[in-house]
Amino acid sequence: MNVQEQIDQSRTSIFKAVFPNTTNHYDTLFGGTAMQLMDETAFITATRFSRQQMVTVCSDKIDFTKPIPAGTIIELNGYVTKVGTTSLKVRVDIFVEEMYTNAREKAVSGEFTFVAIDGNKKPVKII
Amino acid sequence: MNVQEQIDQSRTSIFKAVFPNTTNHYDTLFGGTAMQLMDETAFITATRFSRQQMVTVCSDKIDFTKPIPAGTIIELNGYVTKVGTTSLKVRVDIFVEEMYTNAREKAVSGEFTFVAIDGNKKPVKII
Amino acid sequence: MNVQEQIDQSRTSIFKAVFPNTTNHYDTLFGGTAMQLMDETAFITATRFSRQQMVTVCSDKIDFTKPIPAGTIIELNGYVTKVGTTSLKVRVDIFVEEMYTNAREKAVSGEFTFVAIDGNKKPVKII
Amino acid sequence: MNVQEQIDQSRTSIFKAVFPNTTNHYDTLFGGTAMQLMDETAFITATRFSRQQMVTVCSDKIDFTKPIPAGTIIELNGYVTKVGTTSLKVRVDIFVEEMYTNAREKAVSGEFTFVAIDGNKKPVKII
Amino acid sequence: MNVQEQIDQSRTSIFKAVFPNTTNHYDTLFGGTAMQLMDETAFITATRFSRQQMVTVCSDKIDFTKPIPAGTIIELNGYVTKVGTTSLKVRVDIFVEEMYTNAREKAVSGEFTFVAIDGNKKPVKII
Amino acid sequence: MNVQEQIDQSRTSIFKAVFPNTTNHYDTLFGGTAMQLMDETAFITATRFSRQQMVTVCSDKIDFTKPIPAGTIIELNGYVTKVGTTSLKVRVDIFVEEMYTNAREKAVSGEFTFVAIDGNKKPVKII
Repeated sequence: MNVQEQIDQSRTSIFKAVFPNTTNHYDTLFGGTAMQLMDETAFITATRFSRQQMVTVCSDKIDFTKPIPAGTIIELNGYVTKVGTTSLKVRVDIFVEEMYTNAREKAVSGEFTFVAIDGNKKPVKII
Repeated sequence: MNVQEQIDQSRTSIFKAVFPNTTNHYDTLFGGTAMQLMDETAFITATRFSRQQMVTVCSDKIDFTKPIPAGTIIELNGYVTKVGTTSLKVRVDIFVEEMYTNAREKAVSGEFTFVAIDGNKKPVKII
Repeated sequence: MNVQEQIDQSRTSIFKAVFPNTTNHYDTLFGGTAMQLMDETAFITATRFSRQQMVTVCSDKIDFTKPIPAGTIIELNGYVTKVGTTSLKVRVDIFVEEMYTNAREKAVSGEFTFVAIDGNKKPVKII
Repeated sequence: MNVQEQIDQSRTSIFKAVFPNTTNHYDTLFGGTAMQLMDETAFITATRFSRQQMVTVCSDKIDFTKPIPAGTIIELNGYVTKVGTTSLKVRVDIFVEEMYTNAREKAVSGEFTFVAIDGNKKPVKII
Repeated sequence: MNVQEQIDQSRTSIFKAVFPNTTNHYDTLFGGTAMQLMDETAFITATRFSRQQMVTVCSDKIDFTKPIPAGTIIELNGYVTKVGTTSLKVRVDIFVEEMYTNAREKAVSGEFTFVAIDGNKKPVKII
Repeated sequence: MNVQEQIDQSRTSIFKAVFPNTTNHYDTLFGGTAMQLMDETAFITATRFSRQQMVTVCSDKIDFTKPIPAGTIIELNGYVTKVGTTSLKVRVDIFVEEMYTNAREKAVSGEFTFVAIDGNKKPVKII
């Protein structure tokens, strides 16, 4: 399997209904909840790409372009964008869908960097 | 868009890492957590198919074929299997993936029935 | 202690106030939360009946007869309905009570099957 | 219905399995989780007794007699112990049960005071 | 470092925004959530004071003086008030701040007693 | 009150014990949980500084310098670092403390940008 096939196969999706247990006092998705879901999506994408132990090194700029109202559906979409010797980058986009129309648009986007580690927590090559 | 296209387009996936906050004292995914995620997957699938207000009427037999160990990744996959006049059925399968191999197999499977309702909570036609 | 006494003694109740952290965008209890609580009730009932390691094999049809509004109280009630050689069945009913009247009615009902396992996860006799 | 019948009828039970999402680094039930469940039990008991709007005024001394290990089952038991003109007291005991024996003992106990309020949040008579 | 310095240095603060996932049907902070946060604050204060294993023995009277509305900010403040041979007391106050004014007042207050234990769960001297 | 006083007064701290409900399968704090807490800290800091409605525009690079083991205590510390016409920046550092020694070091650090909005969600001046 070549790298492009690995990238395609490790694309990771998480759908979620925006219910009251995830919202703030503006009745929109709390930013911290969005970030938690983005990191989980990125971690799963990185692990499914490499099938190695991966740890988050950093997140790059995360843009909250549009608020996400309660009573919508979101999809988080993660995919590998760059593969280095011991690290890789995963982009995660959040799309918001209205429940009762086909309206769908990108609301949040960010990138995460992971390194592969061995059992002694030392960086190792991504195979 | 015909029904088959609607079905394809409303397929809904939720990936999740099985961390300690979702496990029981056997160190496997708690069955109740699996069911909660299945119902959320089914609800999102039904809503994205119909773009109408949908409520759960019942779940049919849900089979827990294999225990899901902590430290794995699961994917929930929902898709519409039957469309009636005012109700539809959604099947949800849970696949378990080992983190560090490509092993993947079906672990749980079940079916949910939803009806479309109007603003007065009366059943309405699925369009 | 005979079987009927064991059944009576293992009856298991969980009361819960329906607060915003358990509701959906219709302002009713989310179906997935109901199922999670039902499985927890069933698991505790099965364990308290047998005092053996029990795992969920399947849930049978779960009927959501009535929506459960926010600001009510629910009681989940679990009791053993059938005892086989290595498996048993537990029925769980959810009753909804209004807070400020004595109104109470059944809202959800379902049945769960459990098997007893030994330390090697092999089915064993229910004693 | 006299007061004793009201007290009997409003007894409120919550069973819970002690899984990793409720424990601390000693692998016992976190004290704060115990208190949260006790307050919920007390609130439901007070509301089911009076069928009026009730708010917590205070908790009296809560004794944590025994630690509650992971992998056990707890039962919270709430019952009204004193009824005043505008306030009432609810005692909540937590019992811990081993899963695979019939051992059961009291682990935590405390008392909560509630007042009945009207729509303007003013204390009113308990009827 | 003398005791007063230890007390000053172990003062522990937790700020929290009161969002829908922590409120009850009166749209105020649920009492049980307040107690859970108070116990966590007290535990951290006691541990940071003594740097020994500490377990909660009891909470003394906790007064809920004022309801805490959704859409406010709270600060929990913990500090050691008494140091005995094997036990210590921690007071925790909850202050509520309006988001868009400088209004701030005490809403809840309580005291917790902890003992230091060794590896065999026996009480030991607080050093 | 001048800007420096406002900055000092809006410093916001959140302590948290790292228990199993916040950890991943490496037995360290899950990165997504860290980010959720950072955003909450940043939001509270920004609101307490401006006493206006604030929304997250973006997070800048967040560095995960050190893993945070289970059984430690963390402190999140937020403070305003830059005030513009309609936006401001908040830095959040996470420090990890061992429970039973005085060891403490910075583990994670990041910066968040907020804008002040009016009732129509339009950017307004920070006063």
